[in-house]
Amino acid sequence: MTEPLRLGIAGLGTVGAGVVKIVRQKAGLLEARGGRPIAISAVCARNRAKDRGVSLDCYDWEDDPVALAQRDDVDVFVELMGGSDGPAKAATEAALKAGKDVVSANKALLAHHGQALAQAAEASGAVLRFEAAVAGGIPVVKALTEGLAGNDIERVMGVMNGTCNYILTRMESAGLTYEQAFAEADGLGYLEADPNLDVGGIDAGHKLSLLASIAFGTQVAFDDVELEGIGRVSIEDIRQAADMGYKVKLLGVCQMSGRGLEQRMSPCLVPALSPLGQLEGGTNMVVIEGDQVGQIVLRGAGAGEGPTASAVLGDVLDIARGTRVSTFGQLSDKLVKAEPAKTSTPAPYYLRMSLLDKPGALAKVAAVLGEAGVSINRMRQRSHEQDTAPVLIVTHKTTRAALDEALCAMKGTGVVEGEPVALRIEQV
Amino acid sequence: MTEPLRLGIAGLGTVGAGVVKIVRQKAGLLEARGGRPIAISAVCARNRAKDRGVSLDCYDWEDDPVALAQRDDVDVFVELMGGSDGPAKAATEAALKAGKDVVSANKALLAHHGQALAQAAEASGAVLRFEAAVAGGIPVVKALTEGLAGNDIERVMGVMNGTCNYILTRMESAGLTYEQAFAEADGLGYLEADPNLDVGGIDAGHKLSLLASIAFGTQVAFDDVELEGIGRVSIEDIRQAADMGYKVKLLGVCQMSGRGLEQRMSPCLVPALSPLGQLEGGTNMVVIEGDQVGQIVLRGAGAGEGPTASAVLGDVLDIARGTRVSTFGQLSDKLVKAEPAKTSTPAPYYLRMSLLDKPGALAKVAAVLGEAGVSINRMRQRSHEQDTAPVLIVTHKTTRAALDEALCAMKGTGVVEGEPVALRIEQV
Repeated sequence: MTEPLRLGIAGLGTVGAGVVKIVRQKAGLLEARGGRPIAISAVCARNRAKDRGVSLDCYDWEDDPVALAQRDDVDVFVELMGGSDGPAKAATEAALKAGKDVVSANKALLAHHGQALAQAAEASGAVLRFEAAVAGGIPVVKALTEGLAGNDIERVMGVMNGTCNYILTRMESAGLTYEQAFAEADGLGYLEADPNLDVGGIDAGHKLSLLASIAFGTQVAFDDVELEGIGRVSIEDIRQAADMGYKVKLLGVCQMSGRGLEQRMSPCLVPALSPLGQLEGGTNMVVIEGDQVGQIVLRGAGAGEGPTASAVLGDVLDIARGTRVSTFGQLSDKLVKAEPAKTSTPAPYYLRMSLLDKPGALAKVAAVLGEAGVSINRMRQRSHEQDTAPVLIVTHKTTRAALDEALCAMKGTGVVEGEPVALRIEQV
Repeated sequence: MTEPLRLGIAGLGTVGAGVVKIVRQKAGLLEARGGRPIAISAVCARNRAKDRGVSLDCYDWEDDPVALAQRDDVDVFVELMGGSDGPAKAATEAALKAGKDVVSANKALLAHHGQALAQAAEASGAVLRFEAAVAGGIPVVKALTEGLAGNDIERVMGVMNGTCNYILTRMESAGLTYEQAFAEADGLGYLEADPNLDVGGIDAGHKLSLLASIAFGTQVAFDDVELEGIGRVSIEDIRQAADMGYKVKLLGVCQMSGRGLEQRMSPCLVPALSPLGQLEGGTNMVVIEGDQVGQIVLRGAGAGEGPTASAVLGDVLDIARGTRVSTFGQLSDKLVKAEPAKTSTPAPYYLRMSLLDKPGALAKVAAVLGEAGVSINRMRQRSHEQDTAPVLIVTHKTTRAALDEALCAMKGTGVVEGEPVALRIEQV
């Protein structure tokens, strides 16, 4: 095979420009590893005039990504535009329909339309790969789809939004408020144009839904992901958690249980000394638990030009080598529609609340928890000078339903001021 | 494709029995993921009568692994016998010659004969995969060969012998001597029949040489690995290292520099708070550094029935899916014969020595280091009641050659008692 594998690259932001650079600078290496030369036929982006730090003169320019996707001289359509609909979707569909393989970094597109796109790929015999869509440079899609395919996967967990982890780490290490850390991340250019994609957990939720599909052989179901962002995490909770040996992380968890498919993206406490607890700054981590392999931890840069381009090239080289893996690891008609779990796997919870300084207040809270079947593992009430006393409780394993019942009943006690904070403690 | 992929399994120890169990118990899952049923045609081991906890009645039995490897009803020869020569080699060669794909867990065989076996595979159009040979259940061969193939790899590091890491961890956490921790590991059945394979670094060195070949496109060169086991690591060094913020690990490092290919397997100090430093007990970790992706860390169980069988099944399912990757990631005739580096990349070193209690002793040692061009970063001399004073030195980055010159000159000073300990501090 000496025919080059010809790419059409749509989207020339940081990652797109990075891919072009690697293809130009590492031609020998890529050919040796892929078994054939990697070439670029044409590129496409919104602004042709922009300087991207790499010459594009030797590639055809297309204004329309759909036209790029359909070109006869394109074998692989590389989609780096982003967006769950619009041009990215139209061009990806056009490429697959035309039998072109697609390499995509577009988590939103896959999370919303993964099943239909997988079907479209199979219909024309194309493959659709998306390593770059999940956890940047970490080859986690490959690990889960291929390397660990002999396992029944029990749980996948991940810190998959570097911006959120940066904000939480800065809150802890520098004592910043959420607003201050957010502003700092914004100033560094870490936030998406719509920051809610990051801090609302949506971006990480997209990634989680893709991993869940591979792990459990289910159709991607992003709409079923329980989403809670980090906007309500306070410096107080981070400090108290640290004091008890935990870190607060925006943690994605998916697992299949008798209850159905659980997919959660929410702020959780994890043991400070666990690999997840030790993860600082913008780095990503994915933990995969299989019945045979036990726990596998993968850690690396979750974003940025080099890491994301590395993931794109990994997929491109697979295609060059002739590797043909189904989008989510099995034929799309084998993927079942998972029933979302109505309740989550029991876990301990961290609770923080302000109690009015009245005799018997703590007893009332304890009673309410007991009546709901939530038992207390640790409790702390600190000395205080205000009218309210800060109280921390770590429960034993409980269901979220029992906890919610207790939290609801607490309102009726008249001794709890404001809303108690409740954070799941994920056992890792 | 509904024709089953038919395995012939040679070697029915823990891992072999584990593979049989998975094939029996997960037939549906494996077929869905592999795209075709996975079947076992025949098996082979030394002792037919042994109870392996799984029924073998429905598989043909072969006494001779070479005969097994050549059977018409075997598509994939699964080699789980071990040993760098003898039956394992003969059977693997026979399988490849007959055009059978081979999945091997045999690090010694690959480390000694990898290049010839890769050539044999290509000659008949077979593939030879060996995920299970390196770091047990961690899909590191796949990550390096495929997922990170778009990178120039800069360095690969790994703690890849769980037994050694267990011994070192127990020395630190329980204050055991090397001999005590060794005896404990032996009692738990953690040691190979020839313990030097573990504690001499040979087993881990085999694995390192395989990763180096993939990383740098070089022919496997196990004989060029600088090997130093953990037998000379003392509890004193572990304590002193901990006190300065380091952990002692049997660390494999390979990197390609202007000096040539460096492959070292030796006790090193790594920062206690780094992922490698935080690794405890029998767990394995591999750190891959690529020019695009930055640092990727992979962590998981490095041995045992489930993890190793998981790796075997990953390779089997790749073959079922039709994936054909060259043994070391490129055609064997592209693999260059690497020049082993004559000197290693400069690094700081930890030195511990006993100084005779004479005026000017410390000055003499400092002078000798200075004359060799080795500069001192930190030095500690502790109070003492004996005739000798324990002295610790951490150097700035230096070459091993300069250090050896200094160590040699120290003997001539007449103030150093015995052999100084010198451990490389690997910057991670």
